[in-house]
Amino acid sequence: MSGLNLYTYFRSSAAYRVRIALNLKGLDYHPHFVHLLKDGGEQHHDAYHELNPQDLIPALVTDDGATLTQSLAIIEYLDETYPEPALLPASTTARAFVRSLALMVCCDIHPLNNLRVKAYLEGVMNSSDDEYLAWYQHWISEGLGALENRLNSQQHNSPYCYGDTPSIADLCLIPQLYNAKRFDSDIRLYPTLGKINTNCMELEAFIKAAPENQPDRE
Amino acid sequence: MSGLNLYTYFRSSAAYRVRIALNLKGLDYHPHFVHLLKDGGEQHHDAYHELNPQDLIPALVTDDGATLTQSLAIIEYLDETYPEPALLPASTTARAFVRSLALMVCCDIHPLNNLRVKAYLEGVMNSSDDEYLAWYQHWISEGLGALENRLNSQQHNSPYCYGDTPSIADLCLIPQLYNAKRFDSDIRLYPTLGKINTNCMELEAFIKAAPENQPDRE
Repeated sequence: MSGLNLYTYFRSSAAYRVRIALNLKGLDYHPHFVHLLKDGGEQHHDAYHELNPQDLIPALVTDDGATLTQSLAIIEYLDETYPEPALLPASTTARAFVRSLALMVCCDIHPLNNLRVKAYLEGVMNSSDDEYLAWYQHWISEGLGALENRLNSQQHNSPYCYGDTPSIADLCLIPQLYNAKRFDSDIRLYPTLGKINTNCMELEAFIKAAPENQPDRE
Repeated sequence: MSGLNLYTYFRSSAAYRVRIALNLKGLDYHPHFVHLLKDGGEQHHDAYHELNPQDLIPALVTDDGATLTQSLAIIEYLDETYPEPALLPASTTARAFVRSLALMVCCDIHPLNNLRVKAYLEGVMNSSDDEYLAWYQHWISEGLGALENRLNSQQHNSPYCYGDTPSIADLCLIPQLYNAKRFDSDIRLYPTLGKINTNCMELEAFIKAAPENQPDRE
């Protein structure tokens, strides 16, 4: 199918990031729904595995047929290909700061708390529900606490993570906060992050990308 | 101290990535050694915590005094600030591919297998040595297997992950392979990755960055 084709699941934080980017850029896309829990996980079925041998969501198939994977790589691609509005600031130091915030979520919180890790802890290591919840909340607390401190240490005074417009950092933060709330984390502990969340969730691009507004929501 | 100041630990995969980038760019830097195991972990001491509230290595303090964190953000900064030799290809699609390979390591392998996760599994969840080793090797096998497949699905035919020169992807892959060997993973299962490893380890920039060649090695 021509145009941009996004392989997505309503609750996937990584797909949620890319949906926000596409919406901010004003780009239409064809969604393809990959259910992460049905039939042993549709991401493991041949149709998707051939597209992305890592069996992870999202993937974006571009206009010219290239299959892009890994949400941050997809978002950087979109920002390079469709520069307006920019998702990274202009100065190299500010870009590094914004990218570091995004990576604090994408490397140091999300991979520890996603479905495949939950399946391993419960299925192989026989973790109880309580043990899993404690694990989940430990990494949320470490990660969101560090993000809050990192922003505050920079005398944070923006409506968003950096500057006056949403950046890659906000695209990663908002889905992570949504996810944290699902697992009963108290995000009132992070007032700066909470303020950014409120500001982002007033924007159409973020609202339209939210899990509850996806056609495949349950 | 003027110039580039790198906070590093010889065995940290993330610091190792940045050391390779600095060497490839021919940049001198002042190393500051942060021992991740001594005295409860020097990364938690006030001196380092004030620099990086996430208590993770590496951090790079730039010429103009900005503190950069998160290895991939630091490497992108170095590539933007010192463009030669380029660590990313020119085309947007190829850049997305190279970044996705780097993120497969930095998001989906390394964060699951680093020291703080080991400490949690052993200290809080009472995992045995065997259980930790099985956990470690599971994520190595998932991650390196997916990387090998992703490269092979692109008819990989380069000395490096992509093209004729090392890219961000190689900077992430080589430290991860070094780490995997330490934990008895059989990297002969991944012949394409093994070939790339051999080619990279012939380059002075990679050799000089290796853990065994650091002043703080043990």
